[in-house]
Amino acid sequence: MSAPHIIGIDIGGTKCAACLARGGQIVRREDFPTADEPGPDAVLRRLAATAEGLLSRHRVPRERVIGVGVSCGGPLDPEEGLILSPPNLPGWDGVPARRILEQALSLPVRIENDANATAVAEWRLGAGRGFRSLAFLTVGTGIGAGLILDGKLYRGKAGLAGEVGHSTILPDGPLCRCGKRGCLEALASGSSIGRRAQAAAKEHPDSILAGRELTGRDVVEAARAGDALAREALLESARYLGIGIANLLQILDLERVILGTIAVHAGEEYLDAVRTSVREHCWPSICDGVEVVPCGLGDSAQDYAAISLWLE
Amino acid sequence: MSAPHIIGIDIGGTKCAACLARGGQIVRREDFPTADEPGPDAVLRRLAATAEGLLSRHRVPRERVIGVGVSCGGPLDPEEGLILSPPNLPGWDGVPARRILEQALSLPVRIENDANATAVAEWRLGAGRGFRSLAFLTVGTGIGAGLILDGKLYRGKAGLAGEVGHSTILPDGPLCRCGKRGCLEALASGSSIGRRAQAAAKEHPDSILAGRELTGRDVVEAARAGDALAREALLESARYLGIGIANLLQILDLERVILGTIAVHAGEEYLDAVRTSVREHCWPSICDGVEVVPCGLGDSAQDYAAISLWLE
Repeated sequence: MSAPHIIGIDIGGTKCAACLARGGQIVRREDFPTADEPGPDAVLRRLAATAEGLLSRHRVPRERVIGVGVSCGGPLDPEEGLILSPPNLPGWDGVPARRILEQALSLPVRIENDANATAVAEWRLGAGRGFRSLAFLTVGTGIGAGLILDGKLYRGKAGLAGEVGHSTILPDGPLCRCGKRGCLEALASGSSIGRRAQAAAKEHPDSILAGRELTGRDVVEAARAGDALAREALLESARYLGIGIANLLQILDLERVILGTIAVHAGEEYLDAVRTSVREHCWPSICDGVEVVPCGLGDSAQDYAAISLWLE
Repeated sequence: MSAPHIIGIDIGGTKCAACLARGGQIVRREDFPTADEPGPDAVLRRLAATAEGLLSRHRVPRERVIGVGVSCGGPLDPEEGLILSPPNLPGWDGVPARRILEQALSLPVRIENDANATAVAEWRLGAGRGFRSLAFLTVGTGIGAGLILDGKLYRGKAGLAGEVGHSTILPDGPLCRCGKRGCLEALASGSSIGRRAQAAAKEHPDSILAGRELTGRDVVEAARAGDALAREALLESARYLGIGIANLLQILDLERVILGTIAVHAGEEYLDAVRTSVREHCWPSICDGVEVVPCGLGDSAQDYAAISLWLE
C-alpha cells in the first residue's frame, strides 16, 4: 500500500498555488498570479482545476487522496471554512472557501491561516520536529505567530491566537497599522525596519539609504553591504523582536522558537541580536536551552504548510 | 455510593492548611503557622498528621479518598513532585514533598504551583466554569498566572508557563525584584503600587500616605477612603495590568480572565480601569465579550485550589 496523497493549496495576495504531495513530499506544484482571476470564486475554481490537473497527470485516483489542505492569510474561520477579509486579499469577505473547494473537488478540505499552518509544517517536517510546544513567528510586512502547545495547534476561541505582533511592547510607542500604539509589529516588522531606516537616513543625506522609500528587504540588503545606518535599524528591531519572543517564553515556557521570512534573510548578526535580547528579557530558567532558529522549510514553507494540515 | 473524598493541602509562607473535601465541597479545614515547625520535613509531617486527624474524626476510611492535592508557591516540579526554592519558603530547596506525603498518608499525591492550582479551581468551581480557555492572574506581592488552554491546564516544558508577571511591558522601565527591567510585576503588583504611592507621597508631605512604608493594601485602603494620590497610584497600575492582560489575549485569544488578590479588594474603579486599558490595548475582535472578573472562590480559593487537582 503506497503512502496517501494530499493536495495543498496556498492562497496568497500575489500568487496562488496548488501542489500534490505524497508521504509528506511535494511531487509537483503549479502557481498563477492571484490578479489573473477576477475574484475569489474564479481563483478558487482555477485552484480546483489546477489540482484536478495534477491528479490526472500523475494518475492519482481520488480515493488515494486523503484531503485538501488550504493555507491562507488570516483572519479566517477554520471551523466554518470561511476566509474573512484578509488585508492582503481585498474583496475576499466571508468567502466560503471550504464549501467551494469541497464541491469542486469532492474531497474533504481543511483550512488554516498561514501562520498556524506553517507552525504545523515546521513542527511536522521542519525545524520543530520532536518538540511539544513551540512558536513559529513570521516577520515580514506584519508579524504573526502559530502556536503548537502540548503537541497540538492552539487556535484560541475564534482562531485569533498568535496575534503576538499586536501585543504592546512599548506603551505610547509608534502607531501600528492596526491602530494601536507600540505593538511588536510597529517596532520589529519588515515594514517598521524600512520606516526606521528611512527616518534615520533623513538625518544622514550622504547615506546610500537617503532619499528613497525603503522596505525591510532594502534595509537587509544595505546592512549586508555594510551600511551602518541599515545595520543599526536592523539591530534595533532585533532587540524589540527579542522582547516579544521573551514575553512569549515567559508566558508559555516553550521548547523552541522558529522564525520565518526576514529572519531567514537578515543573516547571523540579526539573529544573534534577537537571541541576545531574548536572554536579556527572559529568565535563564525559562530560556536556557531554548533555541531561536530560522525555519527549516525555506521557500517551500507555504506548500508544506498546506499539506501539513493532513499529516499525522 | 457517596461522593469520593479528597484531601487538600496548602503550603504557604505564613500558614499551612489541610482540608477534607467531599464532592467538591470542603467539609473541614485546619491550619497552623508555617514558622511553628523547624523546617520542611516537620511541616510536611504535621500536615500529614492534620490530614490523618481529619479523616479519623470524620470517620472516612482511606479507600474512600481518591487522592491528596497540594498547592504551593512555585517554582516546583509537578512531574517529580519537588518544591524548588519558592521565594516565600526559605530553606525549601528541592523538597520531595510528594514522596514524603505519599509515604506518610499512603495515598496518591498531586502537587501544583498555586497559580496553576487556583486556575484549575476557578475553572472547575469558580468564575471560570464552562470555559475552555482562560487565565487566572494573582496580583499580590507578585504577579503570576495559571493558564487553562483548550480545556486543560497548560504548564509549559518545565512547569514555568504563566510567568506573565515577568513579561516586559516597558523596556528600560523600573527594576523588578527578578533582576529584569520593566516587568509587568514591577509596574502592577501590590508591592509596586506601594512603591509608586510612596514615591508620589514624598512630593506631597501633606498626604495621609506621606512618611511611611506602604504596601499595596495600604494604598487600596487609602484609595477607598478617597485619597487622591492613592487613587492615582492604583489607576496607573491598573493601566499596566490591562496591558499585560491585553497581551495575554492577543497571544492566546482567551474566553475569560480571572483576577485574584488585590483585584478582589481594590474595588470597581480599579477593575474598570483595568478593563478600559484592556480594550485600549487589545483588538475588539479578540476582547469583545471577554469578561475580566474577580475570582469566584474568595478566601477559600487556596483550599479549593488544592482539592481541584483531583476533580474531573
